[in-house]
Amino acid sequence: MKQKVTDGALLRLIRGRRSVRRFKSEPVPREAITRILEAGRRAPSGANRQPWRYIVIDDPAVKQAIRTECERIEARFHRHAPADLASWMKARGITPQKPFLEEAPYLIVIFYKMRELYAVPSIWVSIAFMLLQVEEEGLGTLTYTPTGARLNAILSVPAQFQLATILPIGTPADHQRQNRRALSETAFTNQFGRPFEEGSGP
Amino acid sequence: MKQKVTDGALLRLIRGRRSVRRFKSEPVPREAITRILEAGRRAPSGANRQPWRYIVIDDPAVKQAIRTECERIEARFHRHAPADLASWMKARGITPQKPFLEEAPYLIVIFYKMRELYAVPSIWVSIAFMLLQVEEEGLGTLTYTPTGARLNAILSVPAQFQLATILPIGTPADHQRQNRRALSETAFTNQFGRPFEEGSGP
Repeated sequence: MKQKVTDGALLRLIRGRRSVRRFKSEPVPREAITRILEAGRRAPSGANRQPWRYIVIDDPAVKQAIRTECERIEARFHRHAPADLASWMKARGITPQKPFLEEAPYLIVIFYKMRELYAVPSIWVSIAFMLLQVEEEGLGTLTYTPTGARLNAILSVPAQFQLATILPIGTPADHQRQNRRALSETAFTNQFGRPFEEGSGP
Repeated sequence: MKQKVTDGALLRLIRGRRSVRRFKSEPVPREAITRILEAGRRAPSGANRQPWRYIVIDDPAVKQAIRTECERIEARFHRHAPADLASWMKARGITPQKPFLEEAPYLIVIFYKMRELYAVPSIWVSIAFMLLQVEEEGLGTLTYTPTGARLNAILSVPAQFQLATILPIGTPADHQRQNRRALSETAFTNQFGRPFEEGSGP
């Protein structure tokens, strides 16, 4: 029998979260950035290697340099995007222009040490914790991953660190709601394809 | 000037979380599992592709089959582990035996569709949200990733889906505390190596 599931504070945070691509110019308290970093660095990681390095950008000249490099990469990416992705991006108004890289009061640029054990899973768990802390602060962000952008040079990052993503952080000026597949399409019991039954356990 | 950072509910949850490898036999409410799945499927994903599929295991025979396959892989892995990882595992009493795969009342086995855009980042963000929901439920888990284990056959999972991890879910019987590097070692401002300053913003 299906029972009503009561949300706690965390699920409300998760359900309320939206990706934000436009930001207001109002300032963000630096303490909020500290707490967002704290959420990230407290994440679990493979063999506790903590492969993450976070670079907080508040210097407009550095933001501009990052935006210029990212838009160079984006222009190339959009020219060669697979058809399904191109139409997905077009429907959402996603273009090679990335004004949020200058509009957001802060960028957190996240790198990881490539050779560490389970480095990619670990860095994304850390990023996920930060996404939720951004939401808890009443701020907005999205994960923006400009594959191939040469940010190591701009930020003096040693070559053994790889860019994972950029989180622009600010007060949301818009957001996009995304639908989710039903639980019954994604969760199964004991075998793939056998629907998960909510409610009382065995 | 350094200011005191006040934790909110999410940071308390993140700081309180520990990886759990031993579980009590007491039952877990199925509603808790539903909420954990809900936290996972509400995660953001690349181009909203939602590459995740969750298989909830409560059948002891299926758990046993999973454990047998994982321990087969583990025995091989431990024989060939790099020296630094081998000593890290030994110090923590991590052996090829994985009793938690049968002791935990539930396993959630998580697969992802390999060919989707940003599939690996997306699945780990989903897993991270689930880790926190497990904590919110007062339960324990860890991410257990038996690389190379042939679980698709045991669980009838189509070949285009790849195992990401197994989350054993139950009431903690022990946990391991891990230290974290200081914030000053992992967070910088505007350039790699320039320490992040907490406190009042510009």
